[in-house]
Amino acid sequence: MDLIEYINSKREEHLSELKEFLRIPSVSAQTEHKADVERAAHWVAEKLRASGFESVEIVQTKLHPLVYAESLQAPGKPTVLFYGHYDVQPAEPLNLWTSPAFEPAVRGENLFGRGTADDKGQVHIHLKAFEVLRNTSGNLPLNVKVIVEGEEEVGSVNLWDFVNSHRQQLKADALIVSDTAMLAKGIPSITYGLRGLNYYQVEITGPAQDLHSGVFGGAVPNPLTILAEMIAKLHDRNFRVVIPGFYDDVATLSRQERQALHSLPWKEREFRKTVGAPALCGEKGFSIVEQLWTRPTLEINGIWGGYIDEGAKTVIPSKAHAKLSTRLVPDQDPAKIARLVERHIRKLLPKSVKVGFEVLSTSKPWVASYTHPVFQKAIHALEQGFGKKAVFIREGGSIPFVTQMHDTFKVPCVLLGFGLPDENAHAPDEHIALENYFGGIKSVALFYQQLASL
Amino acid sequence: MDLIEYINSKREEHLSELKEFLRIPSVSAQTEHKADVERAAHWVAEKLRASGFESVEIVQTKLHPLVYAESLQAPGKPTVLFYGHYDVQPAEPLNLWTSPAFEPAVRGENLFGRGTADDKGQVHIHLKAFEVLRNTSGNLPLNVKVIVEGEEEVGSVNLWDFVNSHRQQLKADALIVSDTAMLAKGIPSITYGLRGLNYYQVEITGPAQDLHSGVFGGAVPNPLTILAEMIAKLHDRNFRVVIPGFYDDVATLSRQERQALHSLPWKEREFRKTVGAPALCGEKGFSIVEQLWTRPTLEINGIWGGYIDEGAKTVIPSKAHAKLSTRLVPDQDPAKIARLVERHIRKLLPKSVKVGFEVLSTSKPWVASYTHPVFQKAIHALEQGFGKKAVFIREGGSIPFVTQMHDTFKVPCVLLGFGLPDENAHAPDEHIALENYFGGIKSVALFYQQLASL
Repeated sequence: MDLIEYINSKREEHLSELKEFLRIPSVSAQTEHKADVERAAHWVAEKLRASGFESVEIVQTKLHPLVYAESLQAPGKPTVLFYGHYDVQPAEPLNLWTSPAFEPAVRGENLFGRGTADDKGQVHIHLKAFEVLRNTSGNLPLNVKVIVEGEEEVGSVNLWDFVNSHRQQLKADALIVSDTAMLAKGIPSITYGLRGLNYYQVEITGPAQDLHSGVFGGAVPNPLTILAEMIAKLHDRNFRVVIPGFYDDVATLSRQERQALHSLPWKEREFRKTVGAPALCGEKGFSIVEQLWTRPTLEINGIWGGYIDEGAKTVIPSKAHAKLSTRLVPDQDPAKIARLVERHIRKLLPKSVKVGFEVLSTSKPWVASYTHPVFQKAIHALEQGFGKKAVFIREGGSIPFVTQMHDTFKVPCVLLGFGLPDENAHAPDEHIALENYFGGIKSVALFYQQLASL
Repeated sequence: MDLIEYINSKREEHLSELKEFLRIPSVSAQTEHKADVERAAHWVAEKLRASGFESVEIVQTKLHPLVYAESLQAPGKPTVLFYGHYDVQPAEPLNLWTSPAFEPAVRGENLFGRGTADDKGQVHIHLKAFEVLRNTSGNLPLNVKVIVEGEEEVGSVNLWDFVNSHRQQLKADALIVSDTAMLAKGIPSITYGLRGLNYYQVEITGPAQDLHSGVFGGAVPNPLTILAEMIAKLHDRNFRVVIPGFYDDVATLSRQERQALHSLPWKEREFRKTVGAPALCGEKGFSIVEQLWTRPTLEINGIWGGYIDEGAKTVIPSKAHAKLSTRLVPDQDPAKIARLVERHIRKLLPKSVKVGFEVLSTSKPWVASYTHPVFQKAIHALEQGFGKKAVFIREGGSIPFVTQMHDTFKVPCVLLGFGLPDENAHAPDEHIALENYFGGIKSVALFYQQLASL
């Protein structure tokens, strides 16, 4: 039977099995779900065994187990390493879900439930692709290594230890990841670039304790005002970051790449609708797509201090705080940028306050040259699987694991995303388009099949 | 027996009775203390009856009762209206108290416990002054009306209704309030000026919902940054408020008043120590005392938005908030200032955000001419009671009730404060100096006695 026909015949079976996976509330951040997380790991391992992986292991870590599997029955054929995660975000606030988070339900053309898009639905696409390849041709057509971890939503705390201690074993010709989104509905996409991310926290202290704003106001440093004045000096009126050296290492976009980006079927109107702000604003001189994918940013992610409850309290607080982050693009170096940001912020703050500055995390930007044959195979498979033109896109977000793997193994990383930008990945009513789930199984199966002849 | 000798002979008795008052946890903000609040009202009423007040009433309101009493047995003599409150702030955080908040304890030269300074201790000073006057001369030497309310710490929500519906009955020659602080230890003080207070809340909305700062960062308005940029434009580098018209109605200090303020035994070193900031900062061209008491301010009292918990979340929030307030001085008009502030803030904010602006409260500044004989009687009585030079001071804080009473009855308001600036009025380990409690009883008794001959 033809691969595509076979997959079409299994729709109900696949969907029903995905719902079974989604019903396990594998919330990695919540201790009360520890047993569920474990159960999800076993569920994944079982499916991999059933698809003919000859070695399937549940690797215990300090927190949640990861599943590692190998099928190396295709000597002389390429080897791929597939990465995904079976853990999910907390479902709270529960009252905002139309149907319960862990009782998956089809409404219209979508399947709703926590984990549908991020990332159980996308992991299941690969599990089913492995299965259909085995069922239709007796074996997997290439060598496959699989990591499905249970800590992605809590920062992949133990993943890198595993990778580091299994470097030799994990070697592959390409890394395949499905944890991203398509450009838009009906536009299958491969992500070839991610921004890096440095995350910082600033604490400033003025008075030694909270003061009465009547008794002391007018003569003492107010950390809230001082914090605001500092933040106001981080951008100029063209929305450029005013930190000396910040843009020094930013690679200029090639003419070809800029043209390719501009010819994407990217809909500004839809973007504006999703954002829903009275107006957009971004760095002058760049298109919105360039701003989002190819330019570094500095964003304030949180700010707090003083009285923040109902009503009035006349306080000048001792402390004010901000969380901020910089998104980085090639060839910015996270460590260098962190130094520049800290130095400038310290310089901006007056002597009337003490400054605490902390770098919470750093990660490098990543961009791949998609002329590599594995990318060409992938885009071809996507077009066949979906019956639609597929595109290469970049993303403004960051996946540190991809960057680390790329740096460590120096292999192509293929990001096949089957989510959509508005699928509420970390919010109530998370969902996946059924079209993309079924199209995903077809594309991935075709991709693995065709990769065998690379 | 001489009045002072008599008061000295009653020290243990007075202190013991005050402790009884303090043991009633009359926390007006906490529903579980409703019965305690009621009990404290009855306690005050009982003491007033015992001091010979012929009419003592517990007036029920929509929240907590107030105690109203009259002793009008001195025909031809002046009438005073005394105001105080028997309710207290919540005692939390309990673990920061050296001894339990509602088990008053003497340590060193101070009495510790919730309400010692604010305001039960100061109310008790007057209760005991009434009693000693009656016990030593058979009756009160002047006519006295007393309001002791139970809602001061929750905004005196029902007080003004009572005043308005009893305008005729409440008429008096002077209002006496003891709910303020002395300039410093050993310096008995009368407060003759208070700043007014407008309190505002600003909410700005950019994106229609929280956005991922990777996916959207660089092209959308970030309400946190925009809020900070707005706040940064409210002061210039000389710490002057940059709102057109803000200073227009500020009365210039007379040479005499400035000289009087500058000759006060005010200790800058102690002020700096209390503040504990690396440096002070205030409006250029004015001394610290002038900045605190005679100049208007704009202070940010709270700011919040985005992710404010532990760790990192890469969010561009939909909303950002700030609470801010302006302290006002004669002859600024609260309604006019509120208009100016709102207009300017709206003007500063860009079109990329929606703005919500709310005025939570307004109150007028107040300043009295202390040449009035009642002030002269008061300062004389303070000097006798304490055996120390007394001073006239202003305060940076606001007591809306005083301003309202002054406007309504057009009578002198005498603010006899027996607290100290560092007595933790709203914090753990609240205390009152025993010296000031006992000196207070003597001064107040002498004041009432001498006022009879006005």
